[in-house]
Amino acid sequence: MTQNIYDESAFFENYSQLRRSVEGLAGAPEWPALQSLLPNLNGLKIVDLGCGFGWFCRWARQQGAAQVLGLDISDKMLARATAATSDTTIIYAKADMEKLNLPRASFDLAYSSLALHYVEDLAGLMANVHDAILPGGRLIFSIEHPIYMAPENPRWLVGSDGRKIWPLDSYLNEGRRISDWLAKGVIKQHRTIGTTLNMLIHTGFTITHVEEWGPTARQIDAMPELAEERERPMFMLIAAQH
Amino acid sequence: MTQNIYDESAFFENYSQLRRSVEGLAGAPEWPALQSLLPNLNGLKIVDLGCGFGWFCRWARQQGAAQVLGLDISDKMLARATAATSDTTIIYAKADMEKLNLPRASFDLAYSSLALHYVEDLAGLMANVHDAILPGGRLIFSIEHPIYMAPENPRWLVGSDGRKIWPLDSYLNEGRRISDWLAKGVIKQHRTIGTTLNMLIHTGFTITHVEEWGPTARQIDAMPELAEERERPMFMLIAAQH
Repeated sequence: MTQNIYDESAFFENYSQLRRSVEGLAGAPEWPALQSLLPNLNGLKIVDLGCGFGWFCRWARQQGAAQVLGLDISDKMLARATAATSDTTIIYAKADMEKLNLPRASFDLAYSSLALHYVEDLAGLMANVHDAILPGGRLIFSIEHPIYMAPENPRWLVGSDGRKIWPLDSYLNEGRRISDWLAKGVIKQHRTIGTTLNMLIHTGFTITHVEEWGPTARQIDAMPELAEERERPMFMLIAAQH
Repeated sequence: MTQNIYDESAFFENYSQLRRSVEGLAGAPEWPALQSLLPNLNGLKIVDLGCGFGWFCRWARQQGAAQVLGLDISDKMLARATAATSDTTIIYAKADMEKLNLPRASFDLAYSSLALHYVEDLAGLMANVHDAILPGGRLIFSIEHPIYMAPENPRWLVGSDGRKIWPLDSYLNEGRRISDWLAKGVIKQHRTIGTTLNMLIHTGFTITHVEEWGPTARQIDAMPELAEERERPMFMLIAAQH
């Protein structure tokens, strides 16, 4: 089972205070880039893998999605997501991404935001998602960028010229990474970009877009602390088609 | 025109002494991985973009390739490549990758080893290569990995625990990088992985394999100095299909 860190009190408290938790999609700087990869959602059947507080599920319905299934492992997040809507075409359910068992040929779009890097058996999940998507359907997701996740000590250094340096090492040594983000001992799975893309290809997906996300000049003007994200990417956005 | 650094005496002298120049394909540690991406070459028409001393062209003929066109901008390298074979089905020609003008639908395979990261108008080159490849044909190439190329100061640091650290910065700032590899002032073009892959996709290629190359345990046993290549990848290998 994927570690259910989101239900641990300290983590949940801290996570709830993040801008993306309070403001929803508009509070996530990578959202405009991720949104631009989405097809017109009107009439689509969608599954959201790791739906959290349900911000995307509710937004998808506003865009005319026919049906949205939001899955998460966290009871606390599902409770808040459920309380936030009375829309009966959004269904929330508890699910462990390690043993996903979606019905065959049932969705036009599988969406996931910053969840799949927690999954150990990503190949198994991709195979299930591929079966669950209709021909021509899409898998669109964001994950932590492996450059961000790889290092033994993932903290900025300052170089001799005063510039920030990201201390990369261990990039090709894939596997478990334990970080202290919001709480101690958060377990993530480091994979190279190549591994993730080849997994999609071998599952039968066609890669349609790969983006190593960074803030735009306008975003940095509005929020100068984002500038460091151009030194090394924090997120990766991937679009693939069945 | 792409900088013709290979014809500058100091660079050419130093390049000629590299293992991969003396021993050929067997002297390049990434060759087994690149080779495994190639189709059966028997009967194929092949173009090698940046053929250098012609090691791959000669090997391709040994594998039964029907015809091999080796292109390079360096007169010195072409002279040595030409002198190394009497095989008339290998044709060497001088070409500037910025203005490639291959004939339409003429090749089954376009191959390139560590050359395309010098090219400024890579989108233009890819479009020409796509036109030049027959339906079902392949483009298979290696380039320097953008993690290797991005930093302002691309030299190992040693962390407080004695481990090597690659000082990554500027990853999302694409464009010219000037390095002092073998000679001063070598000009390369930094692009993110996403940019290169999206360029292939927009040109009409289907991505079939992406590999961030690192040495195997056996290679490190035989050559311990390769171990650092697992901390951050130096090469990227990409296979795409028409």
